[in-house]
Amino acid sequence: MKARERKGSLLTAAVDIGGTKILAGVIAGDSILSRVEVPTEAHIGVEGVVGRILSALHSGLVQAGKKPADLAGIGIACAGLIEPEAGVVVNSPNLPGWSLVPLAARSRDEFGLPTLVMNDANAAAVGEHRFGAGREVRHLIYITISTGIGGGLILNGELYNGAWGTAGEVGHMTIDANGPPCSCGNWGCLESLASGTALARDAAQRLSKGERSSLRELSKGNLNAITAALIHQAALTGDALALELIAQAGQYLGIGMANLVNLLNPQLFIVGGGVARMGELLLAPARKVMRQRAFPVAAELVRVAPAALGGNAGLLGVAACLRDKLEAP
Amino acid sequence: MKARERKGSLLTAAVDIGGTKILAGVIAGDSILSRVEVPTEAHIGVEGVVGRILSALHSGLVQAGKKPADLAGIGIACAGLIEPEAGVVVNSPNLPGWSLVPLAARSRDEFGLPTLVMNDANAAAVGEHRFGAGREVRHLIYITISTGIGGGLILNGELYNGAWGTAGEVGHMTIDANGPPCSCGNWGCLESLASGTALARDAAQRLSKGERSSLRELSKGNLNAITAALIHQAALTGDALALELIAQAGQYLGIGMANLVNLLNPQLFIVGGGVARMGELLLAPARKVMRQRAFPVAAELVRVAPAALGGNAGLLGVAACLRDKLEAP
Repeated sequence: MKARERKGSLLTAAVDIGGTKILAGVIAGDSILSRVEVPTEAHIGVEGVVGRILSALHSGLVQAGKKPADLAGIGIACAGLIEPEAGVVVNSPNLPGWSLVPLAARSRDEFGLPTLVMNDANAAAVGEHRFGAGREVRHLIYITISTGIGGGLILNGELYNGAWGTAGEVGHMTIDANGPPCSCGNWGCLESLASGTALARDAAQRLSKGERSSLRELSKGNLNAITAALIHQAALTGDALALELIAQAGQYLGIGMANLVNLLNPQLFIVGGGVARMGELLLAPARKVMRQRAFPVAAELVRVAPAALGGNAGLLGVAACLRDKLEAP
Repeated sequence: MKARERKGSLLTAAVDIGGTKILAGVIAGDSILSRVEVPTEAHIGVEGVVGRILSALHSGLVQAGKKPADLAGIGIACAGLIEPEAGVVVNSPNLPGWSLVPLAARSRDEFGLPTLVMNDANAAAVGEHRFGAGREVRHLIYITISTGIGGGLILNGELYNGAWGTAGEVGHMTIDANGPPCSCGNWGCLESLASGTALARDAAQRLSKGERSSLRELSKGNLNAITAALIHQAALTGDALALELIAQAGQYLGIGMANLVNLLNPQLFIVGGGVARMGELLLAPARKVMRQRAFPVAAELVRVAPAALGGNAGLLGVAACLRDKLEAP
């Protein structure tokens, strides 16, 4: 049933491909009718992962009791640089070996359905704008902080893609010209200073210099086992080093937000991703530094809010973009 | 004659208010029918400067042989933060004492005509987009480098204002978290590293440490007399210090451009303002650093071009925005 009775009513399947997990399901508007989560196993290579993606979509259909013929199309949100017209993943920092992977074509071959491929953070930005923390907001910036830092820009009520579809990389603003190297090849990017990876790196450095912290016990003395989640755990028990490192990441996040306030004058920042679960430990220093550094009028009016949809924002967002495209006159 | 025969044909007067000069004229499309330039004399205070602005507009009318009744409206481009709905200058770094100046109301009282007030760099961005180096370009970023660094964003073919009209402040991105203090109260902004003021400051510092440079003779030994124009003059005769400082400013400009490429993925940067007259001495290192630091696909495709309209971009741009507003259905 390809119901077209009212706008936004099309039934679609969607998949959100990250470096560690693949999430798939059948979507109707803001409802997730089925939800399948499998590990990405990125190490098995491109063909293996593409197989797992298609298989996760099939499982999502089965779980919802649907067949491909029931659907209007497939939406694919994927980490990395996407060529949107052709639906090709140009490259992806979290998916080793992925170079010019024609994901839309592979999905069309498998399901015989129109397929949209887009960047995962852009999809999540649309999800939060339509169904989450950013409803009815005309200008918002979505920032997702986990291993890396990604983002999406909603300007004038719509996702802003830029000239070649690569806009919104808020994690790759240089905010310290002489800062640490970043995964993107640049140095001093926001991602290199405030991501989960940056937090873990700084904690390991400080511990290797002999600083006291409960992180030593939590990581069983293995500095490589320290993660942002472990630092959060230590902070919740009052560990001074963990609290200091999270506050420092928040301060860098605040510098990034100040830049975005001065450049784009948004009404709202939505902060999501695993590291954002640290909540006010991270966001309070971010707000403070943002207001110290940005133009007063714009900085006082902008709000900073946590994401509302958690891990589902990408699925809901790519499904919404696909419906928009299919329903366009 | 308020001709409405075809779109863009309305006759308007426009004025561009900077910290050092006021430029006024009568505009028809891309034609400047008259052009009057007077010093701002910002030190005489708000009332005095407002008088000079209105008087410059009258002179422009007289020089074009027009009366207020011949015009459809008045466009005012002004440095600083503008509240666009009310036409109020909230504040202006280059106009001391200006706080909540109701410039649109003053112009309407004087001429009895609809008046639009907008930020000068935003006006220049529109001017270059409609009539200059950015014609037919859908996504461009205008950067003006003089005493300070301002800018304007053309996204999806239109000026992007943000939520409260303050978007486009490209000079106030922090690119060195521990950098020098900036006029805006922040530190390490692009403006504090690559503006004419930053160049003059760095040259004076280096000379005060005893470095050899023809700037010493050119400034007659008065370090306070060193300007970006003097540094340019020294560079053209091969002065090593001047060349090094301009290249360094260009490198910082390149970091700012890399941030904008990753965030907004524009097709074109247009660089204007007095310091931009340094041409490739400044732009070649900027391009190089931008391509080293930004995402490869977007960085390779974006062009960097000098402004085409010189000092007239603001006049032409504010007149075009005013016509758009008057002609809107």
